[in-house]
Amino acid sequence: MARVIQKFGGTSLATVEKIFNAAHRVEEAINNGDQVAVVVSAMAGTTSRLVSLTREISALHDAREYDVVVSAGEQITAGLMALAIQSLGIPARSWLAWQLPINTNGDHGKAHIQSIETGEIINRMCRGEVAVVPGFQGITRRERVATLGRGGSDASAVALAAALEADLCNIYTDVDGVYTSDPRIVTKARKLDKIAYEEMLEMASLGAKVLQSRAAELAMRNKVIVQVLSSFDSVPGTLLVDEDAIVEQKVVSGIAYSRDEAKITLTGIPDRPGIAAGIFGPLSDASVNVDMIVQNASDDGSSADLTFTVGKADLERALEIIKLNQETLGYQTLLFDSDVVKVSVIGVGMRTHAGVAKKMFETLADKGINIQVISTSEIKVSVLIAEEYIELALRSLHTAYGLDTE
Amino acid sequence: MARVIQKFGGTSLATVEKIFNAAHRVEEAINNGDQVAVVVSAMAGTTSRLVSLTREISALHDAREYDVVVSAGEQITAGLMALAIQSLGIPARSWLAWQLPINTNGDHGKAHIQSIETGEIINRMCRGEVAVVPGFQGITRRERVATLGRGGSDASAVALAAALEADLCNIYTDVDGVYTSDPRIVTKARKLDKIAYEEMLEMASLGAKVLQSRAAELAMRNKVIVQVLSSFDSVPGTLLVDEDAIVEQKVVSGIAYSRDEAKITLTGIPDRPGIAAGIFGPLSDASVNVDMIVQNASDDGSSADLTFTVGKADLERALEIIKLNQETLGYQTLLFDSDVVKVSVIGVGMRTHAGVAKKMFETLADKGINIQVISTSEIKVSVLIAEEYIELALRSLHTAYGLDTE
Repeated sequence: MARVIQKFGGTSLATVEKIFNAAHRVEEAINNGDQVAVVVSAMAGTTSRLVSLTREISALHDAREYDVVVSAGEQITAGLMALAIQSLGIPARSWLAWQLPINTNGDHGKAHIQSIETGEIINRMCRGEVAVVPGFQGITRRERVATLGRGGSDASAVALAAALEADLCNIYTDVDGVYTSDPRIVTKARKLDKIAYEEMLEMASLGAKVLQSRAAELAMRNKVIVQVLSSFDSVPGTLLVDEDAIVEQKVVSGIAYSRDEAKITLTGIPDRPGIAAGIFGPLSDASVNVDMIVQNASDDGSSADLTFTVGKADLERALEIIKLNQETLGYQTLLFDSDVVKVSVIGVGMRTHAGVAKKMFETLADKGINIQVISTSEIKVSVLIAEEYIELALRSLHTAYGLDTE
Repeated sequence: MARVIQKFGGTSLATVEKIFNAAHRVEEAINNGDQVAVVVSAMAGTTSRLVSLTREISALHDAREYDVVVSAGEQITAGLMALAIQSLGIPARSWLAWQLPINTNGDHGKAHIQSIETGEIINRMCRGEVAVVPGFQGITRRERVATLGRGGSDASAVALAAALEADLCNIYTDVDGVYTSDPRIVTKARKLDKIAYEEMLEMASLGAKVLQSRAAELAMRNKVIVQVLSSFDSVPGTLLVDEDAIVEQKVVSGIAYSRDEAKITLTGIPDRPGIAAGIFGPLSDASVNVDMIVQNASDDGSSADLTFTVGKADLERALEIIKLNQETLGYQTLLFDSDVVKVSVIGVGMRTHAGVAKKMFETLADKGINIQVISTSEIKVSVLIAEEYIELALRSLHTAYGLDTE
């Protein structure tokens, strides 16, 4: 007997048949003697439809009303899932965010869960009733509906698991676990049995779409054991655990990539203090996230070139802002390139093993792939390369780090 | 300056363009110095789609979860309408049923509104903010979502008008008012400037779809002045008012019809006490509503024939229940006919004028239309006739009672 959370994503709830498939997962756990709370996303496509309705009405919309609209999708699946579970003879009820409540901060559209009241649902779970909770939402102190941002249902599930002190948080999705790399590109990619929280966090924020990065962060902070698994196959998935719980740790656990990158280069910047702030301040004010940054001084030290990356969707806005500030910044030329990808190798083993970055650079050089920007952290090395090399780069690195299946 | 409710139905909110059209109605009222609260239905088609999802999952569903699912449609339009009004530069916010709250009894799926907390929205309306409220829903004492039944948004609007002591409750729909009869059939039908509450109530319950009958009842009980009007044309609609407020009252105000009728006849019933209870008891237990009832004794008084009508959707179930009870009931034959319509003439003037029923029977007899069942009340006469005569009957009666446009 255990207390488990079962979270189902939109593709796992896209049709009535799939909702029943999910309900049967709940039934298995109940038959196993488990206490079960279910967290649901909206049916695939619903949230996007609602988001575009709000955009059609007003590009610059009141985020509080936006949240009222887009949170409706999970309300629908919560009721439907409760009905499906009931129809299998298992007591179930839906708990909307205001009914529990799920308390968030006031940051509408990308709110954070602060606390979840669980007294009543724990009582009922102990009596065998399944609690069905809509993901992606909560209410603020002012009793307004707040959503957690796209993919926020994963975070809802992990936060609920933490609040319920659950033994396991199962994230059911359309893939059967976390892979060493994208199996659609790297056919020799292997499913990982276990992955450290930090690695998952890096993978999620570096482009792997299997779990939302805030969910990985919440799991790490609260030591929630998360399993990512398929809602369609009955095979074990990948467990997110503490680094120490992974016995045979490879130096590199996975290779992630992100196509959502655009590169901007300013040449001939006067090399004096405050220039970086002069560029990145206005970008930050406009909510443009800057990722990788490299600065090279010229030979004589009088001027420098600055290269950095932003999300593809932010490129236009970033260029505009920079042009507006040309006079103060005093750069010579403004270059940009959106045909780039970021490739990252990730592994907690890097902390104790040298040579990981070196192997990456050598492997890419051997294949004639030019590295445009480099950034590193304690457990990852990221490089920016031309988009056309993405398949070659991923496969070569996957082999080089010994990740291929035999 | 007045305090007005503006209620928009699903066809008036079916697209983003139509939502803006509705928002412009709000703008007109605000520019006129009015205080405005808006009540919205779901976008046309949404509720039906949600209802069929719940049915696909479970035919005999938990009405509490059904309500969670189907109430989502109005939540969506409430947020969208608030955004549309805001984009015209007018402050607005949505108030979900739990946020006000709108309190209902516990009769899920067909709940009644008991009270609405309005203190906060009155404060804000006085400061020029528009309150946008989803129709069709409330919350029970147990804090579960409850819906009011199909068409319940009209009732929401009238209940809110009563709670806010509004001067006027405008019900915007896809027709421009209440007509003396269905203009699609009776081309000479006239729009009524005013109609008495009781007449509207009879019309609504007798098949006219322009206003939900519970809304008419609520308006009558609370003396709410309701206007039914088009959201697309800028012409005055029809006012629901007290009988006394109608100066030139015709004897008959309108002619309604309903195709949703089926006739059941039992012949050779033993003529002894308790037989009617023996038939209608089990039907009532199965929630089959019986409408018109006629009983004829045979010549020798030993047996009788009983004819009554039920909704078309209930016919199969009603027949099954009667067959199950054949032994106790002891009838000889069971006949049924679903090719029938109910035609009703309605008017508060009947209270003081004799001969209304006689004129109806004579008019139909002149056209060779056989009357199968008759039922009367203080302000209406209804007859059941063969469906094929519907157009002929409506037009002849419309002319006979002097309702035709010149």
